[in-house]
Amino acid sequence: MAPSTFTQIVLAERPTEYILPSTFEKKTVPYVSPNDNQAVVQVDYLSMEPAMRGWLNDQRSYVPPGAQSTCSWLIRSPTRFVRRAVQIGEVMRSAVLGRIVEAGKDSAFNVGDVVKGYLGWTEYVLLDDEIIKTKQVSKVDVPPKAELLDLLGVLGSSGMTAYFVRSGLYDVGKIKAGETLVVSGAAGAVGSVACQLGKIRGARVIGIAGSDDKCSWLKDELGVDAALNYKSATFHDDFRKHVGFFDVFFDNVGGEILDFALTRMNKDARILLSGAISDYNKSKPSGLRNYQLLIATRAKIQGFIVLDYVDQWPAAGAEMAAWLAEGKIKRKFTVVEGLDHATDALSMLYSGGNTGKTIVKVRTMKKGNL
Amino acid sequence: MAPSTFTQIVLAERPTEYILPSTFEKKTVPYVSPNDNQAVVQVDYLSMEPAMRGWLNDQRSYVPPGAQSTCSWLIRSPTRFVRRAVQIGEVMRSAVLGRIVEAGKDSAFNVGDVVKGYLGWTEYVLLDDEIIKTKQVSKVDVPPKAELLDLLGVLGSSGMTAYFVRSGLYDVGKIKAGETLVVSGAAGAVGSVACQLGKIRGARVIGIAGSDDKCSWLKDELGVDAALNYKSATFHDDFRKHVGFFDVFFDNVGGEILDFALTRMNKDARILLSGAISDYNKSKPSGLRNYQLLIATRAKIQGFIVLDYVDQWPAAGAEMAAWLAEGKIKRKFTVVEGLDHATDALSMLYSGGNTGKTIVKVRTMKKGNL
Repeated sequence: MAPSTFTQIVLAERPTEYILPSTFEKKTVPYVSPNDNQAVVQVDYLSMEPAMRGWLNDQRSYVPPGAQSTCSWLIRSPTRFVRRAVQIGEVMRSAVLGRIVEAGKDSAFNVGDVVKGYLGWTEYVLLDDEIIKTKQVSKVDVPPKAELLDLLGVLGSSGMTAYFVRSGLYDVGKIKAGETLVVSGAAGAVGSVACQLGKIRGARVIGIAGSDDKCSWLKDELGVDAALNYKSATFHDDFRKHVGFFDVFFDNVGGEILDFALTRMNKDARILLSGAISDYNKSKPSGLRNYQLLIATRAKIQGFIVLDYVDQWPAAGAEMAAWLAEGKIKRKFTVVEGLDHATDALSMLYSGGNTGKTIVKVRTMKKGNL
Repeated sequence: MAPSTFTQIVLAERPTEYILPSTFEKKTVPYVSPNDNQAVVQVDYLSMEPAMRGWLNDQRSYVPPGAQSTCSWLIRSPTRFVRRAVQIGEVMRSAVLGRIVEAGKDSAFNVGDVVKGYLGWTEYVLLDDEIIKTKQVSKVDVPPKAELLDLLGVLGSSGMTAYFVRSGLYDVGKIKAGETLVVSGAAGAVGSVACQLGKIRGARVIGIAGSDDKCSWLKDELGVDAALNYKSATFHDDFRKHVGFFDVFFDNVGGEILDFALTRMNKDARILLSGAISDYNKSKPSGLRNYQLLIATRAKIQGFIVLDYVDQWPAAGAEMAAWLAEGKIKRKFTVVEGLDHATDALSMLYSGGNTGKTIVKVRTMKKGNL
């Protein structure tokens, strides 16, 4: 039965550093039933991604003239492909999973269909053609042996990032069996898959994470050769001992760990910069002081982003699903209950409270619900 | 006629930041005549290179176990290739040009031969087999239409660096005609050649230098499309206006200019890090704060060093000599007179007083001398 109103979480003010309780605010809006061509999605799960912090920054200066896009928040140009910032008062953007709960007789959707898209932090969304196009909403199926949540995890953009790190590791990073791969944020949604792809390739893999529990998971479940806790007082010594010098560094963290890593590069080392979560909340990052060492080692730091490969997602998803079914890829979820706790769940990514993929379950209800 | 003693300049103390008057000291040592197998070089010219500041830092931690070399100050290992620091009390290392002034009857050299090698800041050197091998001393000829000093400039390691930036620009940087190339330190020995190689390739070339005179030279003589004075109050605006966004940045300077440049990268930009002269004298470089932009642009920063190509120097030198003869490559020298002023000449590299290749003429004598 349709409610008369529902809740959304909108951006209230731009954070200058960390996300605060005042960054977002709740908004109650009227529920509108669909016309013949429309449908309504009830949102079940929100995907939390480190990159979301960047979406809160005002990046107007970054947008080139003549840019255009079919997606409301992606701006394409011949040479640039950037995100539009979430606007003040706008529903916080995120990938979600939901179900069609009402559908007009001419709608492309049927009640019960599972859909995925960038619908944001909201309980319901009225789907019209424009929204379907701009928010990239589509019906999805759960592959055999996968879970529904995998569609936001290893089969979602986090997993696709790691999947395309396969391209990164092989084509850009050119990692070879026996080489040393370091992964930071190794217990996170992206890093945990990157570790496993490294092992599949035959590399020696060292994961970096922020707790002993995460390190145990990396060693015992994911089979990395060593796992280092960066919060340990002996972290730098541990790195020297277990890594020595590395050939490839798949970095999700940036900041001080990346700067330290620059002192431990083998000649011709390759650093794949997938994220910089440690600096996303800083208005003045401390910066890479050891960059000069790139010269003596002829090493490189290269940026990497999953959006380049959007066209290849379906094929990549099929292969990832097969690996999941074969047990080659393991994953973990951290599920936070309640739309009200979305802000906390997002903040947790930056404080390191999560292991694996972080999901917000929008409704807090009894077991048995989707 | 051989003197009884001569002068050397030795390292007196390690500078923590800038080179000071107390960094080096003069030393008077006895002149020793050669035996039958030996020869004596009188040093005429010293090559000043920005990298020399790095040779003064104690880098013991950087030397891997098992390293070995045929050259006294280069340490080779399977994966690393680093310089040994100049030791306290040791003659300051530099490439030099000189002439054989005394030769034993069984020596491989004859009086009058012009030789080049890493003989350092000294008036004379007694050449034995070990010194010839470890200091890379060899007899040299001046190619047609080249000057003697070119052997320390565009035909020396500075020029070779720029020459191999051709490999860098084409193979690593993959620069294409019509793309935008930015060169920092553009009026220096390396940068000025890099600008010209960029133009030969058909790129739009913008040079960055530290004075209006240098900028004029870049525009009027070397034919760059624009030259920007980084000391100007409008430098950032000038960069935005004349460069817009760049495809390749050949960087000799590092530091703040590199950090700013990170905000002006085209998608898939390539930064070739050839030097970081602005940070060589800083014990705590401010670091690259904008490195996160590498992710969105999928750009890369790659270290580049000429030592990788030592084996190819002869062939490269021949091609460079041909370009010089054809007038395709222009160059300029800044000559400082007197061994006593070697310290000033070296410091001038970091304060930006030089244009083109900086040379110290060891003897201050009347015209007509070599």
